[in-house]
Amino acid sequence: MTDAECAYRLEELRRMIEQRLRRSLRRGSPHQLNEACRYVLDGGGKRLRAALVILACRAVGGRTAQALDAGAAVEIMHNFTLVHDDIMDSAPSRRGRPTVHIHWDLNGALLTGDVLLGAAYEALLRTPRRDMRPLLELFTAGLIEVCRGQALDLEFERRSDVTVREYFVMIEKKTAHLITMATELGGTLGRGTARQLRALKTFGHHLGRAFQLQDDLLDVVADQAELGKSIGGDIIERKRTYLLLTALQRTRGQDRRTLTRLLRLPPGDRALRAGRRETIAEVRSIFRRHGVLADAERLVRRDTARALEALEELPPGEGRTMLRWLAERLGSRAS
Amino acid sequence: MTDAECAYRLEELRRMIEQRLRRSLRRGSPHQLNEACRYVLDGGGKRLRAALVILACRAVGGRTAQALDAGAAVEIMHNFTLVHDDIMDSAPSRRGRPTVHIHWDLNGALLTGDVLLGAAYEALLRTPRRDMRPLLELFTAGLIEVCRGQALDLEFERRSDVTVREYFVMIEKKTAHLITMATELGGTLGRGTARQLRALKTFGHHLGRAFQLQDDLLDVVADQAELGKSIGGDIIERKRTYLLLTALQRTRGQDRRTLTRLLRLPPGDRALRAGRRETIAEVRSIFRRHGVLADAERLVRRDTARALEALEELPPGEGRTMLRWLAERLGSRAS
Repeated sequence: MTDAECAYRLEELRRMIEQRLRRSLRRGSPHQLNEACRYVLDGGGKRLRAALVILACRAVGGRTAQALDAGAAVEIMHNFTLVHDDIMDSAPSRRGRPTVHIHWDLNGALLTGDVLLGAAYEALLRTPRRDMRPLLELFTAGLIEVCRGQALDLEFERRSDVTVREYFVMIEKKTAHLITMATELGGTLGRGTARQLRALKTFGHHLGRAFQLQDDLLDVVADQAELGKSIGGDIIERKRTYLLLTALQRTRGQDRRTLTRLLRLPPGDRALRAGRRETIAEVRSIFRRHGVLADAERLVRRDTARALEALEELPPGEGRTMLRWLAERLGSRAS
Repeated sequence: MTDAECAYRLEELRRMIEQRLRRSLRRGSPHQLNEACRYVLDGGGKRLRAALVILACRAVGGRTAQALDAGAAVEIMHNFTLVHDDIMDSAPSRRGRPTVHIHWDLNGALLTGDVLLGAAYEALLRTPRRDMRPLLELFTAGLIEVCRGQALDLEFERRSDVTVREYFVMIEKKTAHLITMATELGGTLGRGTARQLRALKTFGHHLGRAFQLQDDLLDVVADQAELGKSIGGDIIERKRTYLLLTALQRTRGQDRRTLTRLLRLPPGDRALRAGRRETIAEVRSIFRRHGVLADAERLVRRDTARALEALEELPPGEGRTMLRWLAERLGSRAS
């Protein structure tokens, strides 16, 4: 398949998912809750996680129709995490629109997240399959892990001694687990062998890690227009990313003092906001000088390679080809 | 069975549920999240919903062991709603202890609720049964209804034209549905007939209504020491209860002006807080003069009677006896 064919096929899947997501929407009373759910699920996005469910199902010999509801379910669960995470991060916008708690209010956003989680289980339960237990176990374990990952992330914000190792534990729960869950769900729906399920799990794990590291990198080096949001947000919010934690381990003298001074500023510090551009440029150059950016790029390449390697366990075919294409594309994405 | 025997049996069930709830607790990292879950699930309470699952299961010929995990699951889901509702209501305390968002913070409480919901599904999935789909469908529909009920409740706080009819729609979603879900889950676990399941649903529906109406009543007429919290909270918070909405429909002249003036005060009004006792006494006497309290008592009796009537469809035995005892006790409870 050519690059254009793969892109066309992905877009086709995205449209099927959008249609399936619309089944979860309700009209009428309670008006605000239903509107907020529509606002969230209409918000677009790549629907990457849903595509992974379907492609993993196909890669082990299953059909698209078996995996569509589970794909929608994973996508809705992902959106539940975004709504609640945005409350916790006091994020004003997402994908170029006001977040739910800004557009409505905190209570509305809290409840929208809760009911989306219900809608996610409801979508999963539409799956035409007799034995639902393995699907529901994977899904529930995913929900719990993503909450635990977010709890670690919040904990890290209050600590100054977070290690790179702890960072990886956190992103494995907060980001990678949901991606692994997507590929495992797909493999289970397609009735893959134990060996194929392990391969899909390994694939999801490395893809998820590469995805998060690439996210951290893009925040610092992306083209702002292409990224669709302002650069350096993680730096200004002093997020404990792989880049910052590695730089803290590696720097001495002036560079280290620059970083620790930045970390000690109170949240929303005026001078920091006023000197935003300069701070970002300075921190970026520290990252570059100490090889942190090159290191992160190397890790993205390594995890992408391991993800691709795992795919070799799966039978050749459109599903596997598309998974490979997606992994290569995500490892070199610009937004 | 004597009253003492029933009380003893219920206490026995409560202990089994407490034990089952402890399986959902984790130690270690993320520390705060695990501690908050323990805080919530260790908080006591009557474990009424869990007991209903087990007793409904027994009433159709099932065994206690089949229903324990589902009982724990319903109890955990109930606690999830309490944690999030307390955030939305800015409630400072519950069962005599600071609420989660006061003891920790908003983000911690939000995440505690989320992970409790995961733990609720996890507990349900421990149920030793092949066909999990009907259980999970009931459970998920319950989650969605309870969120929709809470959304209506929030909506009503901003409206001055809520009708008694709308109030019943709201409490049927917010309170009664979870109780109906408990009895339906129990009946399904015990493999009750379609007719028995309908009877259990009717029982739960009327019991849930009676329970909420009795709650509204107790806020106004209970003995403060017995209730374990201060009287009149609903009046001071201007909650749209059955009592207030009925009084608004029924009063004219001075009494009506007193009520509408109260409703127009801004939240946390100083004069209202200072004159708390007098306001409560005045509103209580309006409720009494216009027969609102007597009406609510009549409704509690009527719904309790209908709940008991539904039980006649079930075979006689300990399960049915205990359900009857519970319904009679709740209809005349003082706390």
